[in-house]
Amino acid sequence: MIFTATEADGSQIHDITARAGVFNQEEIDSVPEMFHEYLNLGAEGSGYHFIVYRDGAQVLGFSIYGYRDLTDGVFDLYWIAVDPNTRRNGVGRALLTASEEAVRKMGGRIIIAETSGTAEYASTREFYVRMGYENEATIKDFYKPGDDLKIYTKRV
Amino acid sequence: MIFTATEADGSQIHDITARAGVFNQEEIDSVPEMFHEYLNLGAEGSGYHFIVYRDGAQVLGFSIYGYRDLTDGVFDLYWIAVDPNTRRNGVGRALLTASEEAVRKMGGRIIIAETSGTAEYASTREFYVRMGYENEATIKDFYKPGDDLKIYTKRV
Repeated sequence: MIFTATEADGSQIHDITARAGVFNQEEIDSVPEMFHEYLNLGAEGSGYHFIVYRDGAQVLGFSIYGYRDLTDGVFDLYWIAVDPNTRRNGVGRALLTASEEAVRKMGGRIIIAETSGTAEYASTREFYVRMGYENEATIKDFYKPGDDLKIYTKRV
Repeated sequence: MIFTATEADGSQIHDITARAGVFNQEEIDSVPEMFHEYLNLGAEGSGYHFIVYRDGAQVLGFSIYGYRDLTDGVFDLYWIAVDPNTRRNGVGRALLTASEEAVRKMGGRIIIAETSGTAEYASTREFYVRMGYENEATIKDFYKPGDDLKIYTKRV
């Protein structure tokens, strides 16, 4: 089930990120930093809304989203990650659907999910397309030469 | 001439933003917030590099740029604004050229300038094109319905 993240989820959230196998160290380190701000300032104050998919006490995945400054109703999906060991289908789908519903309730019009154009992220890009996202824009060589930024959007 | 911004420039920077006539209140208010972080944490600590074009003690324009997290060599041009009363040509060009040189010295590969697709920003978009930028990506209805995000990029 989906819950708002609490302090006790922190180590499992970090662990999922580290074990996912596709993120670099700077990316992995960004999650505890965001979680720290979220715990200290709250979702509104930090701009980071954290939700988790929990099975009992076990966290199977998490999502982070937040309002994009200077826009009317745009939200960024900063992170969505599922435990690579989980055999449970639909954890990612449940997390993304819950994030979209929360954004809609906050008056959001558009969700933006940014990802990489490399082969390692092919399943991530396919997941967004299955979930109704469109690759609306691309910036060549953004992350590094040969690694494009793919901007996926969905009107919610 | 171009200088690194100092505390004394703050009120003129804010004043230029307010008098430009195209920015909304949230946008105008974001500049003193960024300037405050820049003064307190420095350019590296805050992520905001502030430069000004000064004629004697008068600030005729400013630019803010900074490194984009999680990329290898991408810098955002957060702001560039010129006093609407100045008759001096080339202030914007000098500020943008100096920003690009500074980015290049920091190992930057790409500068990203985001702007609006509305008629009010036509001269801004033309300025970027004259300066060698390309409208590489667009997100429809980003700022608000009918107001697209236009992402301009330049390889430096």
